Amino acid sequence: MTKKVAILGAGSWGTALAMVLEENGHDVRIWSHKAKQADEINFKHTNKFYLPAVVLADSIKATHHIEEAIKDVDVIVFVVPTKAIREVAKKVVPFLTKPMVIVHASKGLEQESHKRISEILEEEIPESKRQAVVALSGPSHAEEVALKDLTTITAASTNEDASKVVQELFMNDYFRIYTNDDIIGVELGAALKNIIAVGAGALQGLGYGDNAKAALMTRGLAEISRLGVAFGADSITFLGLSGVGDLIVTCTSTHSRNWRAGHMLGKGNSLKEVLESMGMVVEGIATTKAAYELAQEKGIEMPITAAIYEVLYNGAKVEDIIVSLMQREGKSEA
Amino acid sequence: MTKKVAILGAGSWGTALAMVLEENGHDVRIWSHKAKQADEINFKHTNKFYLPAVVLADSIKATHHIEEAIKDVDVIVFVVPTKAIREVAKKVVPFLTKPMVIVHASKGLEQESHKRISEILEEEIPESKRQAVVALSGPSHAEEVALKDLTTITAASTNEDASKVVQELFMNDYFRIYTNDDIIGVELGAALKNIIAVGAGALQGLGYGDNAKAALMTRGLAEISRLGVAFGADSITFLGLSGVGDLIVTCTSTHSRNWRAGHMLGKGNSLKEVLESMGMVVEGIATTKAAYELAQEKGIEMPITAAIYEVLYNGAKVEDIIVSLMQREGKSEA
Repeated sequence: MTKKVAILGAGSWGTALAMVLEENGHDVRIWSHKAKQADEINFKHTNKFYLPAVVLADSIKATHHIEEAIKDVDVIVFVVPTKAIREVAKKVVPFLTKPMVIVHASKGLEQESHKRISEILEEEIPESKRQAVVALSGPSHAEEVALKDLTTITAASTNEDASKVVQELFMNDYFRIYTNDDIIGVELGAALKNIIAVGAGALQGLGYGDNAKAALMTRGLAEISRLGVAFGADSITFLGLSGVGDLIVTCTSTHSRNWRAGHMLGKGNSLKEVLESMGMVVEGIATTKAAYELAQEKGIEMPITAAIYEVLYNGAKVEDIIVSLMQREGKSEA
Repeated sequence: MTKKVAILGAGSWGTALAMVLEENGHDVRIWSHKAKQADEINFKHTNKFYLPAVVLADSIKATHHIEEAIKDVDVIVFVVPTKAIREVAKKVVPFLTKPMVIVHASKGLEQESHKRISEILEEEIPESKRQAVVALSGPSHAEEVALKDLTTITAASTNEDASKVVQELFMNDYFRIYTNDDIIGVELGAALKNIIAVGAGALQGLGYGDNAKAALMTRGLAEISRLGVAFGADSITFLGLSGVGDLIVTCTSTHSRNWRAGHMLGKGNSLKEVLESMGMVVEGIATTKAAYELAQEKGIEMPITAAIYEVLYNGAKVEDIIVSLMQREGKSEA
């Protein structure tokens, strides 16, 4: 059944998700905070900066006005950077006329509050105006989804009906959706894997090889899982698509911004240089701070996160930190 | 303390392990089943076919005679292909004069019997002639270890003293050893990940991208873990270096023979062509058969293994099998 869907955020991922929905016969509107970008989508049917290789269907419409974007829609999908989630939610609320399924496909933790994205959305959107919040997450480079390359992801919610709505909305031959009821684990895996990707990039930028990277990723998965379990996630979730699956894709693909940012750090660039050259939000950098603070609060050992934190926020030298991290005395794997 | 160590098997991994031991000050002898290869190591200090870029220390000696290789040694390390383990163990036994630590660094399951390598060694080497069997496994491309790139692996045994002996023997700044008491999990992870690597290679040979590969690896880890747990392994082991760590390195690095074999299959080559062009043992191909039969016996669902089995042993078309594998109906991740 055709649905009306608003995609809030016109980055690579928002655009790729809009393409999937259009492909599935839904009526899609993209909201961009930049009028010029909305015009590009409407008149040129491209989004060159974010997805250079792609031509969008004429029926995908964009707007700079949030009210217009969400008017009469059945589902809203938030795909803005983590730092913009709360602000965009506040803008949306006045125009919500009925309770609906709220989806988000962003990956991070809020600064200061350390909240997950669904927690922010639940705070800002009154219960009367939402049916449930669903997190969409998994190994899914937007560039590949836009090319209809086979992709498998998770729709997570404590409300099973809502995650099934999202499954049905997005599912097709090349975009496979699995439901999951552990939204805490799904959101934490999604956010925290970006830290490990920065570390993997740094390691490779310093000249280390595949053996070292696999070791870092293995230990990274363990520390993500430790923090997750401390916050009520099911450890099995970290073995799934939004856990190890997304960790793999983010740490081993050159599409990954977080990996690229780490790689530049490893090559000797300053954080300032890295951020200037990326031109897009690198979620892992802010997430490192939030996760570091969370781990401190709860007394969870997260040596990779702590090491990346020292590099990003305390001016530690990446080469010193990585070497000592990899040579930490450990005797038994357990 | 300097030890005398025999490395049985002069392939890439045996040679790289010999280099680590020599670096650590031990007295190392490599046994090769080819007299010519032993001569190359002794006189040219190279092993060109297996590790083209490497020059070996003069003190690393090789021999074609197994008695000479193991005379007076403190530790024996088996690094021959899985199919040769039993035969080489039989050759060794008559010359063993005292109980000693038996290490192996091979990754597979025996055909027909479906036994793990430590099981074969325990069957062939009488209890009076062994202190314990230790499996050495983890994300460790030989090419990188030979270049002293940082590598982290597991020494697993039910005998903690023996795994500590192995840890001390191999540990240095760039080769980090962690002990583990779950040898079942370590050996099964080591063997089974090669099947998933063949699948990942096939997927990429067919033109699929990183998202699809990450999904395959995620599901691969789940099915490895299912089989392992059914055979008494601890599920946590599959989250460690010899599980997810080795899976990552084997599926994402071009060094991996199993990945390359799969990639050639995906590109349309026949199994015969693949085997001819590899020139080295591709453990994953035989392991697929053993694991498929094991899973059938125990009634464990292993869809990826079954799919690769159909391609390798029943002439199924790789493109048909992979597509139906990736589009299997699944609704929930659990």
